[in-house]
Amino acid sequence: MPSYTANTRDMQFVLHELLKVSQSGVPGYEEMEPDFTEAVLDAAAKVSSEVLAPLNAVGDTEGCVLENGIVRTPKGFKAAFEAMKDGGWTALDCDPEYGGQGMPYVLNCAVGEMFVSANMAFNMYQGLTHGAYSAIHAHGTAEQKAKYLPKMVSCEWTGTMNLTEPHCGTDLGMMRTKAEPQEDGSYKITGQKIFISAGDHDMAENIIHLVLAKAPGGGEGTKGISLFIVPKFLVNDDGSLGARNPVSVGKIEEKMGIHGNSTCVMNYDGATGWLLGDLHKGMRAMFTMMNEARLGVGLQGYAVAEAAYQNAVLYAKDRLQGRAVTGVANPTGPADPLIVHPDIRRSLMDQKSFLEGARAFTFWGAHLIDRAHKAGDADAEGLISLMTPVIKGFLTDKGFETAVLAQQVYGGHGYIEEQGMSQFARDARITMIYEGANGVQALDLVGRKLAQDGGKHVMAFFEMIKAECKAHDGDERMKPFTDALKAASKQLQAAGMFFMQNGMKNPNAALSGSYDFMHLMGHVCLGLMWTRMAQAAHAALDGGATDKDFYEGKIATGRYYMARQLPACAMHLARIESGADPVMSLAAEQF
Amino acid sequence: MPSYTANTRDMQFVLHELLKVSQSGVPGYEEMEPDFTEAVLDAAAKVSSEVLAPLNAVGDTEGCVLENGIVRTPKGFKAAFEAMKDGGWTALDCDPEYGGQGMPYVLNCAVGEMFVSANMAFNMYQGLTHGAYSAIHAHGTAEQKAKYLPKMVSCEWTGTMNLTEPHCGTDLGMMRTKAEPQEDGSYKITGQKIFISAGDHDMAENIIHLVLAKAPGGGEGTKGISLFIVPKFLVNDDGSLGARNPVSVGKIEEKMGIHGNSTCVMNYDGATGWLLGDLHKGMRAMFTMMNEARLGVGLQGYAVAEAAYQNAVLYAKDRLQGRAVTGVANPTGPADPLIVHPDIRRSLMDQKSFLEGARAFTFWGAHLIDRAHKAGDADAEGLISLMTPVIKGFLTDKGFETAVLAQQVYGGHGYIEEQGMSQFARDARITMIYEGANGVQALDLVGRKLAQDGGKHVMAFFEMIKAECKAHDGDERMKPFTDALKAASKQLQAAGMFFMQNGMKNPNAALSGSYDFMHLMGHVCLGLMWTRMAQAAHAALDGGATDKDFYEGKIATGRYYMARQLPACAMHLARIESGADPVMSLAAEQF
Repeated sequence: MPSYTANTRDMQFVLHELLKVSQSGVPGYEEMEPDFTEAVLDAAAKVSSEVLAPLNAVGDTEGCVLENGIVRTPKGFKAAFEAMKDGGWTALDCDPEYGGQGMPYVLNCAVGEMFVSANMAFNMYQGLTHGAYSAIHAHGTAEQKAKYLPKMVSCEWTGTMNLTEPHCGTDLGMMRTKAEPQEDGSYKITGQKIFISAGDHDMAENIIHLVLAKAPGGGEGTKGISLFIVPKFLVNDDGSLGARNPVSVGKIEEKMGIHGNSTCVMNYDGATGWLLGDLHKGMRAMFTMMNEARLGVGLQGYAVAEAAYQNAVLYAKDRLQGRAVTGVANPTGPADPLIVHPDIRRSLMDQKSFLEGARAFTFWGAHLIDRAHKAGDADAEGLISLMTPVIKGFLTDKGFETAVLAQQVYGGHGYIEEQGMSQFARDARITMIYEGANGVQALDLVGRKLAQDGGKHVMAFFEMIKAECKAHDGDERMKPFTDALKAASKQLQAAGMFFMQNGMKNPNAALSGSYDFMHLMGHVCLGLMWTRMAQAAHAALDGGATDKDFYEGKIATGRYYMARQLPACAMHLARIESGADPVMSLAAEQF
Repeated sequence: MPSYTANTRDMQFVLHELLKVSQSGVPGYEEMEPDFTEAVLDAAAKVSSEVLAPLNAVGDTEGCVLENGIVRTPKGFKAAFEAMKDGGWTALDCDPEYGGQGMPYVLNCAVGEMFVSANMAFNMYQGLTHGAYSAIHAHGTAEQKAKYLPKMVSCEWTGTMNLTEPHCGTDLGMMRTKAEPQEDGSYKITGQKIFISAGDHDMAENIIHLVLAKAPGGGEGTKGISLFIVPKFLVNDDGSLGARNPVSVGKIEEKMGIHGNSTCVMNYDGATGWLLGDLHKGMRAMFTMMNEARLGVGLQGYAVAEAAYQNAVLYAKDRLQGRAVTGVANPTGPADPLIVHPDIRRSLMDQKSFLEGARAFTFWGAHLIDRAHKAGDADAEGLISLMTPVIKGFLTDKGFETAVLAQQVYGGHGYIEEQGMSQFARDARITMIYEGANGVQALDLVGRKLAQDGGKHVMAFFEMIKAECKAHDGDERMKPFTDALKAASKQLQAAGMFFMQNGMKNPNAALSGSYDFMHLMGHVCLGLMWTRMAQAAHAALDGGATDKDFYEGKIATGRYYMARQLPACAMHLARIESGADPVMSLAAEQF
């Protein structure tokens, strides 16, 4: 069975040597000294390894079961959920006014990475609750907040997000779920929602469903959509639970992975709901939480892969097979460990260099969100808005790829469910799909985000790279980083230029290259992260750091990324510059 | 539930317009006229769609069950197996002397592609039997052949291949299974084998296990290994079944996919076996079948993806979501079909251009095997020996990737098992692992095949590409093909040169790039296939072919491959040329 040990060392490096959080002046970061974050991370690491990770395979094997209309979670989940609540882990970055601990989002992400690595399906119950909490926190009335938030912060009640219907996922304008206004100000919600994660379960006394539905008078398409609070049990004014609302689980889906999380078909049969936020502005309300939600999925993508990678490393050190081509490495054993073989190294380095880059990128993104929310930094807001589809799309594609690479290290044993490597690949697969399939992320990036605010944010990003490279001018040690980053950044700019020159005449010319652009930009972002991390590692070594293995390994891993991953940028640019013609030339009948 | 319809049109194109089989002068190809192959393919297509495909999901859901020591296959498998036997499909390319139909291997591959697309797990029962048949046919005594082959050709008895043990897969030198010689010339086989596909089941009256084991006196490592015939039931001299041999199923593995095939732990407890081929030459005996076996797995890789692709196309035409960016395409519907969106096209074109290239490449490989075996063509033998790791490694990596792309077209629905797209991805995954994990294929290619016979075969391959490009000199229509092919071929040669210049000093410098070399070469091979197919399609159009949609689609799909896939070659070259340093620089402890 796989194990998991949180890489708190690397998290501390990213927080304090890359992002320098305690010096960043963001309100709420006052406590973020290395000792403090280390204590939080160590405590979370313990919970991850000891409470969550042992349940990961259980969740996969047992799955969730629908019994008499109620979902039963896998054995041990309920006790673990209690432990999470008792430890205050569900409330980490929530508003103290409602019982939260008010910590920065970036720290919540670091802790979240561990929880996802240890048990992604389990962590989704609180993850969805956090999403619903954020929506009510941002758009609820004072009364709604007082009524729902304290119990959701503590996860005594959990939450869900209800968007998708059988005939519409991306295209929510076709939504059919109806909201009929009642005399008392409430609405009757009627319709069917699908793919509702944590839609029902046995770990909380109430579930607060947030449901998109069409109320009269809103017009066609997405304009008519509003957001509603629909509790499983109605909540009385004194906070006690009242009548069971007519919302029920139609069935649980059998999925490729994340079996420990219940994915439900939810039927709303005239269920009582209350408007959340403005009437007919439901889509906008959802979008305000989009950056966080999508960053959270990008994080899932690499976090699952991190767990897979750790086990691939252990296996590669342990499994004896063949001899090193440069001479016997383990003369007392019957064979050498896999890790001596260059192609196993190639695979492990692909994994490691991606994962550490992804962690830096995601924490940076979370830090930008903190800057935007806590410091009102509009530039940070613009930048994270630009980066969000890249974090979601690129990190989940590469995360899945990484989990598959890790599985491959096991050879035939990787295909056997008992070994647990298959689960990582199957679990990671969903991250490419939900919260906007990755093709939709690419569309959002190229069709909307590039041109947002007159292209200001992407220009700022290019300037940032230029400044980064300039700062290391003449530093020979940094040359492998800055040379590769400059080249990749130029390729990204050339791709953007191609879209500008061709996209106006023919939007397909831009959109045919959107997916490649997302990946090209992902590589540039990770290249920037690696350049900064290499600089930080050199600074630590120059400063006499004793942990030389860590810092030298960091630099070597970064050099691998620059040498072996950034060459993908030229390929993506070539694909982009081939334009719409190869992509669009067949008639539908010719497929 | 997914459907499958064999693409016999494209198969006919490859056989007759690309490979021109009936004019190739290979002995045994006399019957291979278009009408004849069409009749065979049509009949096989019918079996595939009507008998095998409907059982694919059943096999996945039900799996195999071990009951009282005997494996029970999924519902319907037995009847389908009878239908396969009755139709003579198990005997297609087998020796007429033992009841086979003596058809060329290339035709068997075309039929095999359909059977795999329709139901990979099911087709493995006869696939493994065919492998065991080939081994006995090549190495057996006249008596052994007479005793076993007729029943194996008809699949009344099936076969297995027993190589792997718990502690050794790739490194068979560590094998522990023992063979003790008996006075009557037989051996007692004792040991445990794992990952034995079709190791036991309820569809045949006997199972002929071929088992690698160590007999005394053979020395250390792989040199001491011999191959043995170990029947489940001993066979009397009159052909009737005798005593049950002490070989038993320890357990069935729970796997990520191919649930319909029983993957068994086999325990040999002094089971009676007979030497097959020469004593202590068991590895060599296995290797004589390696090209066919590995080509068969490469075929599985793309064949499963073909089924996934077909369903992605159907879904993309059927599912209404969003509007075309260039204007409403389906004004009478609530939305446009997915297939109008450029990014969906990008995905479908990636799939289609790979699949048709892979089919051509595989059939060409099978044709080379026919040339080698039936016409004694040593150049063909050398070329297919070089190509085999590419066919296996590249086509299975890309096949899996393609199945994942197809699954992605379904959005959230692709993650739901009921839709069947997850099964394609899970089934395809094994092809990257078994019959030599793809890293081992890359090692075989770079460490052995490139230099085989003094590098003669790889030089011949480069000459072949040069000649192909030269033949189209001045043909403007072919320029997008030949330009791209020339560039890719140069990159492949540069990679080979890098290995020659650096590999002698440091073998790791070559092996660190082996995986990228395998992919680079795969792209060059598919580029060559597409160049030839484009030429054939132009020739057909010039000749007044009425099926213009097919030929024009073929050319457009080829142009897509050249424009959008061949740019990967430069990336692989850059990775290769970065050498061993980035790959090998970390100490094991730094991972």
